[in-house]
Amino acid sequence: MPIETIDRVGTELDSEAARVSAEVDGFFSRLLAPTGDSREPLYEAMRHAAIGGGKRLRPLLTVAASRLFAIDPERALRVGCAIEAIHVYSLIHDDLPCMDDAELRRGKATVHRAFGEAEAVLAGDSLHALAFEIVADPETHEDPWVRSDLVLELARAAGPSGMAGGQMMDLAAEGRELDLPAITRLQQLKTGALIEYAVEAACIMNKMPAESRTPYRGYARNVGLAFQIADDLIDHSGDEAAAGKPTGRDAHAGKATFVSLLGPDRARQQASLLVSQAIEHIAAHGSEADLLRAIARFAVERDR
Amino acid sequence: MPIETIDRVGTELDSEAARVSAEVDGFFSRLLAPTGDSREPLYEAMRHAAIGGGKRLRPLLTVAASRLFAIDPERALRVGCAIEAIHVYSLIHDDLPCMDDAELRRGKATVHRAFGEAEAVLAGDSLHALAFEIVADPETHEDPWVRSDLVLELARAAGPSGMAGGQMMDLAAEGRELDLPAITRLQQLKTGALIEYAVEAACIMNKMPAESRTPYRGYARNVGLAFQIADDLIDHSGDEAAAGKPTGRDAHAGKATFVSLLGPDRARQQASLLVSQAIEHIAAHGSEADLLRAIARFAVERDR
Repeated sequence: MPIETIDRVGTELDSEAARVSAEVDGFFSRLLAPTGDSREPLYEAMRHAAIGGGKRLRPLLTVAASRLFAIDPERALRVGCAIEAIHVYSLIHDDLPCMDDAELRRGKATVHRAFGEAEAVLAGDSLHALAFEIVADPETHEDPWVRSDLVLELARAAGPSGMAGGQMMDLAAEGRELDLPAITRLQQLKTGALIEYAVEAACIMNKMPAESRTPYRGYARNVGLAFQIADDLIDHSGDEAAAGKPTGRDAHAGKATFVSLLGPDRARQQASLLVSQAIEHIAAHGSEADLLRAIARFAVERDR
Repeated sequence: MPIETIDRVGTELDSEAARVSAEVDGFFSRLLAPTGDSREPLYEAMRHAAIGGGKRLRPLLTVAASRLFAIDPERALRVGCAIEAIHVYSLIHDDLPCMDDAELRRGKATVHRAFGEAEAVLAGDSLHALAFEIVADPETHEDPWVRSDLVLELARAAGPSGMAGGQMMDLAAEGRELDLPAITRLQQLKTGALIEYAVEAACIMNKMPAESRTPYRGYARNVGLAFQIADDLIDHSGDEAAAGKPTGRDAHAGKATFVSLLGPDRARQQASLLVSQAIEHIAAHGSEADLLRAIARFAVERDR
């Protein structure tokens, strides 16, 4: 690829990421507008967690994948926000004292620190339900088959066969020696399932049968793992200011990670290989896949 | 109604409740079968909470309301189980140390006492996602409009406009003097929204537009409030063995209830009035509504 093309794509990623972030913030600001009744602390806690932070990787992936099939960007954004609602709920519950007991998230106080533990449980539960409300709303897609398929796969990605199951594996792994296949499986459930869904959702909106979605899910699976390895490398490097959250926690908790198993150099090589494979999965597409390619490269080139 | 008819209906309620309970247990046993991997503690915690306990009021209501429209009982049961999954998740999270800090639920140790707090958070989250997976599954209903409408209304009933919002109101009410309208609103969200949905779901499966569902929602709203008043009366009476959980907690927490505001006698009268109104809402139906009538009467006649 000539250098000017790479530069253009890099700039496009920055501007698209900024645009999607702003739209996600706008969506949550409208969805979580003040209630004027005694539920207000719950809504305030949700706004604290959902607005103004994070890389918005999942909505960006849905928007980028939707370009492949010329899906209406408004629809892609609504589905992306539903996925982000699931992601944010999982962060709130993950940060609870009985889980990671985190003080800081996305550079701000965690929800239970700022609003109380009971409020944090309820804010997570509320965002979880809202995600399904967004997806099942006829405004998201006029075809009820698409809506119910989007719900079905989102529930699978979020539940005990996906994210929540991966979190249980993570709990069970504390103080035990996991090998590479076990860590890979854990991460594919804990973070991979929802990232895969972010891309698969575009295929569902494009009314593709499950078997045709395979390369797109393959792209997402590779990007998800590459992102996780990059996260482990950032945690390992220990730069808290850049990460926006405490680092070195995995080593402290005695948890095996890609970095502890492979060492930083081989972990970095593995992440690069996954990115190449991800890009290979979407090789049949032309320039409409440039944003997906840029996201894949960003997965390993970022430092936070 | 002649005495023999009342007896027949009473016996029918007992046998239907037992049948639905057994079918709900069977459904969850299949859904939550052992995984054979490190997610097993999560599944064990879900089975502990979801199998073998409770009155199964919500699935029973869905099954009973589905009779009005001759809906396939298998479908009604699946939707009832999804609602029960939401109910069970809310009990698990409600019992957490940061919420009610309960030791006992349905006569057994609460999930966090038996399996740990992090596992309880994840078991609740998992059942929450599974509820939507059940409803969106084509096995539940062949019409995708019905499925996506079932999801939409379930998400509204469970989320911050419904159950989770009511739980926030309940938190905010501690140490404050609520009046009767405020308590009624709190309960309509906290427990009423899901009970209303249990009946509305039958209307959705019957493809009725929202405006035709009003009397059925009215029935459910009245039954839900009557149930809540009966719960308050049981809590007030202090019979822990019959209740299967600690009683007197509301008075201890300084929380206003229907009983603390009205006194036990007027509360009992109010519950009876609500039951009469509930039965009035379904007066247009013949014997196919007998089970709904029996459930309404049971709401106030029970002692646990």
